[in-house]
Amino acid sequence: MKVDGKPMRTIWLEPDGWSVGVIDQTALPHRLVTARLTSLEAAAHAIRSMVIRGAPLIGATAAYGMCLALRADASDEAIDRAYAMLLATRPTAINLKWALDEILAVVRNRPRAERSAAAYKRAAEICEEDIAINIGIAKSGLPVLEAIAQRKKPGEPVNVLTHCNAGWLAAVDVGTATAPIYMAHDKGIPIHVFADETRPRNQGASLTSWELGHHGVPHTVIADNTGGHLMQHGLVDIVIVGTDRVTANGDVCNKIGTYLKALAARDNNVPFYVALPSPTIDFTVADGIAEIPIEERSADEVATMTGRTNDGRIETVRIVPEGSPVSNYGFDITPARLVTGLITERGVIAASRAGLARAFPERAGAAQ
Amino acid sequence: MKVDGKPMRTIWLEPDGWSVGVIDQTALPHRLVTARLTSLEAAAHAIRSMVIRGAPLIGATAAYGMCLALRADASDEAIDRAYAMLLATRPTAINLKWALDEILAVVRNRPRAERSAAAYKRAAEICEEDIAINIGIAKSGLPVLEAIAQRKKPGEPVNVLTHCNAGWLAAVDVGTATAPIYMAHDKGIPIHVFADETRPRNQGASLTSWELGHHGVPHTVIADNTGGHLMQHGLVDIVIVGTDRVTANGDVCNKIGTYLKALAARDNNVPFYVALPSPTIDFTVADGIAEIPIEERSADEVATMTGRTNDGRIETVRIVPEGSPVSNYGFDITPARLVTGLITERGVIAASRAGLARAFPERAGAAQ
Repeated sequence: MKVDGKPMRTIWLEPDGWSVGVIDQTALPHRLVTARLTSLEAAAHAIRSMVIRGAPLIGATAAYGMCLALRADASDEAIDRAYAMLLATRPTAINLKWALDEILAVVRNRPRAERSAAAYKRAAEICEEDIAINIGIAKSGLPVLEAIAQRKKPGEPVNVLTHCNAGWLAAVDVGTATAPIYMAHDKGIPIHVFADETRPRNQGASLTSWELGHHGVPHTVIADNTGGHLMQHGLVDIVIVGTDRVTANGDVCNKIGTYLKALAARDNNVPFYVALPSPTIDFTVADGIAEIPIEERSADEVATMTGRTNDGRIETVRIVPEGSPVSNYGFDITPARLVTGLITERGVIAASRAGLARAFPERAGAAQ
Repeated sequence: MKVDGKPMRTIWLEPDGWSVGVIDQTALPHRLVTARLTSLEAAAHAIRSMVIRGAPLIGATAAYGMCLALRADASDEAIDRAYAMLLATRPTAINLKWALDEILAVVRNRPRAERSAAAYKRAAEICEEDIAINIGIAKSGLPVLEAIAQRKKPGEPVNVLTHCNAGWLAAVDVGTATAPIYMAHDKGIPIHVFADETRPRNQGASLTSWELGHHGVPHTVIADNTGGHLMQHGLVDIVIVGTDRVTANGDVCNKIGTYLKALAARDNNVPFYVALPSPTIDFTVADGIAEIPIEERSADEVATMTGRTNDGRIETVRIVPEGSPVSNYGFDITPARLVTGLITERGVIAASRAGLARAFPERAGAAQ
């Protein structure tokens, strides 16, 4: 998407044809910093330290990490070592392993001299495939936003509420929850986004607001507590969020707090949509609440906050008293009954076993 | 309540018999600092700058502010000036005007020489009345917690979730939502509190956790997004919150985000109680959503966060990109239909017009 008028992606091949450029997301929203990855170790570090984050982008970066490793040493031993090192960076990210396996598949049984080029080709394809899927999501979701816009008075914006960052910064480009939003905005449909700040890591306050603002989409940052009040007063037309995993029943695992917004949407007759690339559907799991273990993360994410001081320094401050225990659950489950629809690259489908099986018969069947 | 074993209140008369001590709450949770108020101006500043906060405590401090003014000058003109200055400190706090009027009533038509003593006497009574009401709330709420404790295995704690700070730091002592919690804890009932951090001002992370911790009540600080997940997994037995205003219908105005927790409680069959001193009931208002205007506060409360750096400095950091608009609504309305009961000094009553009228016939009748 655009950053102040100039098209940009989260990851790209540098003009030298082998090193990899990324946006250093740890410096956002205060500074736009890019980093150049020139080794396996640099790629692994970028994933581990969250220089880059978001499931699709982790996958793309891991794929390029394999390329960088193969460029230096295309032996089987080097491949094994690179695979293991990258896999260990973020053990729970499903796209990470998928992308590593994709690279492995194209270099295996191939002469050493050809491995690096084959890996670079597949890594570039992974990036393009991610974008193509997200454009598919945009096309599926656009009519939903257009229908709301048609009920509005001229010039009155469609008010979308979103949680966390399922934007282009989490992907290679376009994003998932943001995909229909950007497409509608670019087509001239007036649109305004309420971005939940998304404690504890503030992806909404620091990333969603940054990417919407720099692309020119009107938006407002709100505390996570605010969405219910806005919906009670008719200030939200639609909720669109991303997801980390959707079960075969249509239950949605997403950033902690998503469930609370789904409840408020239901209580106020606001449609609640989840945008997702279809690989996010896990047909091996049925009941999200019973079956998906919820990751507990570091207490420091809740107990401290990092930002920019008035004089421009980046500081971390503690907001919880020393000695007070903290719990930090990363995700929650929004039951399928609260989901109006799943916006996928194959259209908007019902969040139900029947809806998912109908849209993805080849995968639903295979998992049974 | 106790701070590390030593009983403490939020406001007290100093041993000199005229100056007023308060806890400087702006230094919490990192340091316990007290301030000595020796003038009307100092009292007004303490309210305005949120050295003290919480409706009952604002009232008590304003009453003592009148005392300090009268001690210096007991003329009618001085009284009028003090009243106006104190009233302007926090225009929306209902207890503030009430307390000022109480002092006015006892000094009016009284010889100048007797005014100061009469004001100090009434200010002390206001403090004692606040504590007596809160002990009444504790006694009303205790059986609710005892009933849950009886269903638990031996030693298993009653898990209470609370939002914001309706604790002793918001009152003269004891608090409202915390009143039954402290009484149960002091009686040896195992109790554990999940304290929502309560963005944007973090009253849960910085005040509720501090007061629970220093009194010795087991607790855990959580991001506001977390409560729904905890309730889905049976980790919360009861929600108890305070309130700024309850309507004649039983709608509850409280800190923004309360409504989302009430929805989650309902969706998971967790009882949702509101603790309140009966003066908080506003029989002149019926429909909370339609009739109560919600205060919009400074964007800086959302865009920035204040805390302690590793080396002990207090710093404010910005977490939202420059140029991104921010909305900051202070309160929301929890409809009466989501409230299991109102814990008052007259017992636990139904959150309904009939329930409120039955418990407070003298006030419900007068307002019609």
